[in-house]
Amino acid sequence: MTRQEGIPLLQYIRKHVTLTEEEEAILLSVVQYRKYLKGHYIVQQGDVCKYSSFVVSGCTRTFYVDDKGLEHIILFAIEDWWTSDIGSFITQTPADYNVQCLEPTEVIQFPYHTQEQLLQTIPKLERLFRIMLERALVSSQKRIARNFSLTAKEQYLHFRTQYPNIEQRVPQYMVASYLGITKEFLSKIKRKLAMT
Amino acid sequence: MTRQEGIPLLQYIRKHVTLTEEEEAILLSVVQYRKYLKGHYIVQQGDVCKYSSFVVSGCTRTFYVDDKGLEHIILFAIEDWWTSDIGSFITQTPADYNVQCLEPTEVIQFPYHTQEQLLQTIPKLERLFRIMLERALVSSQKRIARNFSLTAKEQYLHFRTQYPNIEQRVPQYMVASYLGITKEFLSKIKRKLAMT
Repeated sequence: MTRQEGIPLLQYIRKHVTLTEEEEAILLSVVQYRKYLKGHYIVQQGDVCKYSSFVVSGCTRTFYVDDKGLEHIILFAIEDWWTSDIGSFITQTPADYNVQCLEPTEVIQFPYHTQEQLLQTIPKLERLFRIMLERALVSSQKRIARNFSLTAKEQYLHFRTQYPNIEQRVPQYMVASYLGITKEFLSKIKRKLAMT
Repeated sequence: MTRQEGIPLLQYIRKHVTLTEEEEAILLSVVQYRKYLKGHYIVQQGDVCKYSSFVVSGCTRTFYVDDKGLEHIILFAIEDWWTSDIGSFITQTPADYNVQCLEPTEVIQFPYHTQEQLLQTIPKLERLFRIMLERALVSSQKRIARNFSLTAKEQYLHFRTQYPNIEQRVPQYMVASYLGITKEFLSKIKRKLAMT
């Protein structure tokens, strides 16, 4: 990958750890730049997730399809977020989730097969991943808590602050799926909010 | 802390990273052994979570009390698990959750104020924490997915496989709270399962 293509990733990394120029060069020689079309899948349920992907531009949704054929959206990812089926990635077993691009999406991918070698060469990346994972875990636990105790309207209001720009970028039925409610119920909530 | 007291932690760590004897000694000089009584709180909602705790023996529940005064259990932790309010710990802001001991519980605690220094001295611990967090994140995301798509009965059956020994150790109403159902509904599920 060229240094130019790697700039968004390097900028992100610099917020958390300081790599030498040589380490940055090693990193860029290992990660891969990839452009997906709208609708493309970065991970498909049942496949093994081979990459951890840093989103440079675009928007993805992570979802799974249950036994009844219903889609459930776990999270969205936009610029500067990471996306993968983490369970599949760390165990290299078939993915439970799909990661699909809702817009043309550019990512920088860390391949699983080089990760161990990369971490041996640049141990500072352990720290980067530790920090990323801490944040992801906090966000995931908070989501469980919200599901338990917030009303659909409260969850929707929270969604708007958590993902301030996503609502204009993704279809309404996906916002509803993320919230675990029907599209019709979401419309009703929005109509009521518009009137207050 | 004595080496003897630190053995369960060292055994756990050896599964993931190899520390030198000197590093083990440094680690044991920083972490703290603590015994809590049944009912004691390791973290209380509203306080800042100052420790990340490794459970040597006993059992804890992580829960929060919502605006209506209802308790919601996010997770249980037993021997060889970690427990804290991770969001509060990493940001040193007031905790959203309580961590309470359901049995007399022995833990080994990593204090926040020494964590940065410890990670600088023993960078291998970054790796250990990264691996721990990966697993915790997978487990948390799977829980979100289960909440979406499994029936209460299916969730209960999953709970029994995930926490094989906990059901005998914690009150039924807490199992129900973890599953997000009433105690009565849990009893009904168990009666039906007993008959099949």
